[in-house]
Amino acid sequence: MKPVKIGLLGLGTVGGGTATVLQRNADEIARRAGRGIVVTHAARNRERADALGLAQTRISTDPWDVVGDPEIAVVVELIGGEHPALDLVMSAITQGKHVVTANKALIALHGNQIFAAAREHGVMVAFEGAVAGGIPIIKAIREGLAGNDIEWLAGIINGTSNYVLTEMREHAREFSEVLHEAQQLGYAEADPTFDVEGIDAAHKLTILASIAFGVPLQFDRVYTEGISRITPDDIAYAGELGYRIKHLGIARRTFGAVELRVHPTLIPERCLLASVDGVMNAVLVKADAVGQTLYYGPGAGAEPTASAVVADLVEVVRTLTADPENRVPHLAFQPDALSDARVLDMEEVESAYYLRMRAQDQPGVLADISRILGDSRISIEAVVQKEPAAGETSVPLILLTRRVQERRVSQAIAAIEQLPSVAGDVVRIRMETLE
Amino acid sequence: MKPVKIGLLGLGTVGGGTATVLQRNADEIARRAGRGIVVTHAARNRERADALGLAQTRISTDPWDVVGDPEIAVVVELIGGEHPALDLVMSAITQGKHVVTANKALIALHGNQIFAAAREHGVMVAFEGAVAGGIPIIKAIREGLAGNDIEWLAGIINGTSNYVLTEMREHAREFSEVLHEAQQLGYAEADPTFDVEGIDAAHKLTILASIAFGVPLQFDRVYTEGISRITPDDIAYAGELGYRIKHLGIARRTFGAVELRVHPTLIPERCLLASVDGVMNAVLVKADAVGQTLYYGPGAGAEPTASAVVADLVEVVRTLTADPENRVPHLAFQPDALSDARVLDMEEVESAYYLRMRAQDQPGVLADISRILGDSRISIEAVVQKEPAAGETSVPLILLTRRVQERRVSQAIAAIEQLPSVAGDVVRIRMETLE
Repeated sequence: MKPVKIGLLGLGTVGGGTATVLQRNADEIARRAGRGIVVTHAARNRERADALGLAQTRISTDPWDVVGDPEIAVVVELIGGEHPALDLVMSAITQGKHVVTANKALIALHGNQIFAAAREHGVMVAFEGAVAGGIPIIKAIREGLAGNDIEWLAGIINGTSNYVLTEMREHAREFSEVLHEAQQLGYAEADPTFDVEGIDAAHKLTILASIAFGVPLQFDRVYTEGISRITPDDIAYAGELGYRIKHLGIARRTFGAVELRVHPTLIPERCLLASVDGVMNAVLVKADAVGQTLYYGPGAGAEPTASAVVADLVEVVRTLTADPENRVPHLAFQPDALSDARVLDMEEVESAYYLRMRAQDQPGVLADISRILGDSRISIEAVVQKEPAAGETSVPLILLTRRVQERRVSQAIAAIEQLPSVAGDVVRIRMETLE
Repeated sequence: MKPVKIGLLGLGTVGGGTATVLQRNADEIARRAGRGIVVTHAARNRERADALGLAQTRISTDPWDVVGDPEIAVVVELIGGEHPALDLVMSAITQGKHVVTANKALIALHGNQIFAAAREHGVMVAFEGAVAGGIPIIKAIREGLAGNDIEWLAGIINGTSNYVLTEMREHAREFSEVLHEAQQLGYAEADPTFDVEGIDAAHKLTILASIAFGVPLQFDRVYTEGISRITPDDIAYAGELGYRIKHLGIARRTFGAVELRVHPTLIPERCLLASVDGVMNAVLVKADAVGQTLYYGPGAGAEPTASAVVADLVEVVRTLTADPENRVPHLAFQPDALSDARVLDMEEVESAYYLRMRAQDQPGVLADISRILGDSRISIEAVVQKEPAAGETSVPLILLTRRVQERRVSQAIAAIEQLPSVAGDVVRIRMETLE
């Protein structure tokens, strides 16, 4: 069979990686797909294209020329960001072209619209590279676990945040210091907000939750909290109690509703997820038939993400002749079978909590705090009171609570912060046993 | 659309789990597949079927009646073993019925013949449940990593062996004692040979290697060594040196050839695979674009395996109308594109080695051993000599070597065993850094 001709939008990190992998592994890919896959048109820089070995590829400076090229069967969108990616992708779909993208913001924010258009025009939109880079997590959940009622998933889905937390723990360093170094090493962006404040993870969690539970994409309902307020002390205290602090995206199905949340989380150190360090990603999925499965690998980078993009291309090529009705649905579930389960407000979510405060080293303080927690019907799992440092009259006091609705904890924290014997804010970090 | 009618061969552990999952998750499955999946005919026990909720299902005592039922579109073979499973599956294929199976022996030993028949008759044969139970590892490698040149994979793919090794390490217990207890707890079969001698793992490795490298299934070329000769001492000495002993299936592509081997292996304890304990399975895959990815979960059991069987059913149902030429190839690569790479003899394989021997506690012994290793051009990475126990004149001597061809180590061991200062056999356990 003749090779399939594809158009490549973007020759940056992931676009370059994709061009490289398609060429280097051309034989292996054709042996699997049954035909070759060739980039015949790309945007937008001739010099960069030549450096990537695309000397035979037509290069346009305007990405619209690629999308409009009638020879192209598949458009690979690797520009990133919402605009102009959305218009380019919508135009490709309208022209009957299949789309492969690794753009998490695009899918999380505009996926419902994009998939509706794809169904209308009978084309495929594949997006494995949008979540956890090279880990085939979308395929695993959407197809590999298709027999299950999925109960929850928890993922380390932002490598930058995981790298920062790992460095903070291993070397007892401050957040800002590690972040600064990560920026100099190229592990963190000049503007790290998307990564360390959890927005990137929330994009990915939005997608994972949809394919796990069959709910529409709803990024604006994700509770999102970053890691910038985590201190080396919190990491050390958690360690003394047998926990690691990880920045997790958590999606859980509750009775008729779902939880969607991204926040720092204490997890037991014996849990495999606790051992996922540095820039690596991992997603733990709990489903009713299979139990717990975990998927681990590099969550970003040129070739890991290209691995996912090329896998999508192979799949699109294999499925070119299939009846559109019988393809795997974008969000795992048939579009007319999506659930309208409500996303809980964070105050309605139940979790266990790590609470840290600075309290006067005097009798009665713990009794006051315990009374407030008792009044809110919050049970205490463990208390750790540190020795005062020389010349200090206040001490760090750490409490672990049992599972309780967040609303009650918020109320109790407000009351504790009013106590004259407690100085400053109470630090709250959620805690999950992942069982 | 009307539900798809399937025939179920076998209502034992996995057959029962499959019947249960299909009924309990019927809604979720139909929401994903776009139509229902119903067991209309099963073999072979009415009472068992009723207990599983299959009161509406026709039950035949003869599995051939199920295979011959003209209403059935898909035959699900969960009898296990080679015979009569092979004849039943071949008959189903000849009649134009699709097949889903979790039978690793059947696929590893007869897959080449089965897939050829399936291609001839235009039907699908799906076998996700044959490897690592509920972990969607076949899908991950065959489709999720389709853009990669896969370099090697290493898996803990037999839960019984991993359970025994875990117990031996955690409680410093003997192999035979732990195995006996595992049999009483139902974690090991009455005849545990298939599990602890590595045959079950070799079946699974055969399948994994084919889909990773695009080579035909060749079970008889797998080097297979079990765990029955591992002692608590070896596990403890490995631990002192920073290693865990795991029973691994390893497949590696070398220049124009492949290695296929199942044996106890020292791996660094910092490696995620080293933390996979008890009955859990995990497969680590190294591929050129994505790097290392790991897949973890329960490798056996009623519902974990049913999870894989039902995922295959959903896929078969989705692909019913697809052009057979465009379906995912059974062994990942197109049948006319399989490689004839040779499988290396174990003596040709390169590895590092842990060698343990009992040597006289006297000057010159280490010099003799070092000379023999030097003559075979084997470099020593570490030496540990234990103190003699009270009243003993010989001591355990442990050597770690650098990577070298197995042939040379076999020669050196033979020479060391001739030394008058060395008593008994030299214990050899292979060692991999998995990097």
